[in-house]
Amino acid sequence: MKVLVINCGSSSIKYQLFEMTDESVLASGLVEKIGTDAAIIKQETPDREELVLTSEILDHRDGLNKVLSLLMSEEHGVIQSADEISAVGHRVVHGGEFFSESVVITSEVRQAIRKTIDLAPLHNPPNLLGIDAAQAQLSNAVHVAVFDTAFHQTMPDYAFMYPIPRVLYQKHRIRRYGFHGTSHKYVAQKAAEFLGRPLDNLKLVIAHIGNGASLSAVEYGKSVDTSMGMTPLEGLMMGTRSGDIDPAIVPFVMAKEDLTLGEVQSMLNKHSGLLGVSGLSGDMREVTEAMFDGNPQAKLAIEMYVYRLRKMIGAYFAAVNGADALIFTAGVGENASLIREKVCSGLSYLGVEIDLEENSVRRKEERKISTLQSKIDVLVVPTNEELMIARDAKNLVSSR
Amino acid sequence: MKVLVINCGSSSIKYQLFEMTDESVLASGLVEKIGTDAAIIKQETPDREELVLTSEILDHRDGLNKVLSLLMSEEHGVIQSADEISAVGHRVVHGGEFFSESVVITSEVRQAIRKTIDLAPLHNPPNLLGIDAAQAQLSNAVHVAVFDTAFHQTMPDYAFMYPIPRVLYQKHRIRRYGFHGTSHKYVAQKAAEFLGRPLDNLKLVIAHIGNGASLSAVEYGKSVDTSMGMTPLEGLMMGTRSGDIDPAIVPFVMAKEDLTLGEVQSMLNKHSGLLGVSGLSGDMREVTEAMFDGNPQAKLAIEMYVYRLRKMIGAYFAAVNGADALIFTAGVGENASLIREKVCSGLSYLGVEIDLEENSVRRKEERKISTLQSKIDVLVVPTNEELMIARDAKNLVSSR
Repeated sequence: MKVLVINCGSSSIKYQLFEMTDESVLASGLVEKIGTDAAIIKQETPDREELVLTSEILDHRDGLNKVLSLLMSEEHGVIQSADEISAVGHRVVHGGEFFSESVVITSEVRQAIRKTIDLAPLHNPPNLLGIDAAQAQLSNAVHVAVFDTAFHQTMPDYAFMYPIPRVLYQKHRIRRYGFHGTSHKYVAQKAAEFLGRPLDNLKLVIAHIGNGASLSAVEYGKSVDTSMGMTPLEGLMMGTRSGDIDPAIVPFVMAKEDLTLGEVQSMLNKHSGLLGVSGLSGDMREVTEAMFDGNPQAKLAIEMYVYRLRKMIGAYFAAVNGADALIFTAGVGENASLIREKVCSGLSYLGVEIDLEENSVRRKEERKISTLQSKIDVLVVPTNEELMIARDAKNLVSSR
Repeated sequence: MKVLVINCGSSSIKYQLFEMTDESVLASGLVEKIGTDAAIIKQETPDREELVLTSEILDHRDGLNKVLSLLMSEEHGVIQSADEISAVGHRVVHGGEFFSESVVITSEVRQAIRKTIDLAPLHNPPNLLGIDAAQAQLSNAVHVAVFDTAFHQTMPDYAFMYPIPRVLYQKHRIRRYGFHGTSHKYVAQKAAEFLGRPLDNLKLVIAHIGNGASLSAVEYGKSVDTSMGMTPLEGLMMGTRSGDIDPAIVPFVMAKEDLTLGEVQSMLNKHSGLLGVSGLSGDMREVTEAMFDGNPQAKLAIEMYVYRLRKMIGAYFAAVNGADALIFTAGVGENASLIREKVCSGLSYLGVEIDLEENSVRRKEERKISTLQSKIDVLVVPTNEELMIARDAKNLVSSR
């Protein structure tokens, strides 16, 4: 069975085509600058050179049409007919309280995604555009929505409610939702497999730290808390997002700098975090390099990033009264051995001890970086949200 | 040596007169509703009945004048002449980055307190009114300012800086300051005495939880982190303050409910926390009672309060890579045995074990509530900010 996974941004389509018999990737690609006459399509297929095309692409439907042509082209193609695609897995950012698992897309599902636009005004609309385009062009396939928020719907009320007037939940559904759910779920399963223990017998703290970053506490297979909130702004310090700050800073800065609501949101989401403190970049690699070059602001940015991550890990160990394993994943979590080392060096009170040599190795597979003596297993587990989406789509097709 | 301690609010004066030879309280009292013709003065003196007077009091100078008359009155007085008061200790909420310890008030000090009004617009102006009034009427005494923020000025930059554009620190001094410093300092010293160990050999996590609430990590005698921030809004869930929330909620609610900057600040400071969730009260005793009466919102409020406090304690243990002792103080911390029990029952991963019987005892003195087997000492230490202020004032007079 072949499954196409689609992730649409406001002017982009990310895609991967899976052969689910062996979960191999037949092709993966990215369409950028949709809406312009110089849109770019990049596609990678195993054992062939990366393909880069420039073309006029006016909308998501046009873009997806070009992607399908490419997937079926004589020269670069990997399938003969669009009918080979049995299912399409759509990444949808916000499922609100409507969805606690992946679902086949019906008109009711579309409506619920539309109702949640308020909570994710930047993400849900392009996700819906992608669904429209794909349903029009792959009308024989089963279309499945996989939500970033779904895995966290198992949080208890005392973890997801905010200490604000309760009418705000009743009227506007203001609560913690959490994101990166597909990744946290995938990584939890992989970690359990790697440890050779059943997931429903494990307490895990998972640090998904990429450009966006969130922690989760996964207790016996269920997400019981996560650090992103109503929006992806809350929690850890990120590439360009602030994470937690004194909420009073928001009106204070608005008054001092005469900012609009949109401007203060943009400041906290796009100009804060590593970028805001370093003044250089939101990319951990560049900030780390600048720190080694002696830049004091870069050094401060890294110290804050590590310190805040370590404190939050401490909070999540308390959330589940101690965990069996700590897991790092996503761009920074998988690659930044320095960050892992600095974070873990301050967790010896939990019995965490990492093997510095093992930690410094770069390998794209699950591995343990803690010592044999360590009371807590510390793992690096590469995430794979696309595969998780493809699996959910396949399972929903199979169970029909 | 006699020291008068003064704490002025916008329409109130709290005061205590100490005899510092034995640190005994000669009199303590409260003036309320200043600015009205029905202001109230309540004064307590040892071995006498509480005195309650009603009178027209137009301003703080007038109020302090009446307090001094009362302290010297034939019937209710405890001193013969105002000249017996050698020093006046003034509680000042915000010292910004100017003050890392208590100081004798000079014109430069007054100016620095004035410069910090921006950061504490509700508190510093009445604090200055109190200084004015007291200096006018007790011109022979040494006047000392004791700041709520001073003890936390030892925080390292990676703990006090926010992950927002750094220009906001340079221009507006937006950073974490922390509050309740006088209490955290007093309690840290008391805890060390009680444990019979030098403070500079101890790592402490202190939970000052009253109507306002803050945690501190005190490492070797120095505050290295605290949960209140630029303002007292950040951190723990409190009686009527939210503490930490997704910062994106602020502009979201402003847009949805068409709130001004002042209105959203007021919502988060005065209508949130225990009050906002329970819909009943910001007083822990009343919310606890409602929970026992079966009120589900009161139950949720208590669960959130406990859960958030436990997570934050976990974060502060991580901040200092493990602590020797956890200390509860202030109204809730000293009296709410149920809250202490619920918080500690989820900290067994740290080796915390409390003695339920010892925990349930109410005594107004330092005591250990952890078992002999507990890896972490858990203490209840009654705070006494007034005495700490008096001691600082006395020490500054003595060293002149």
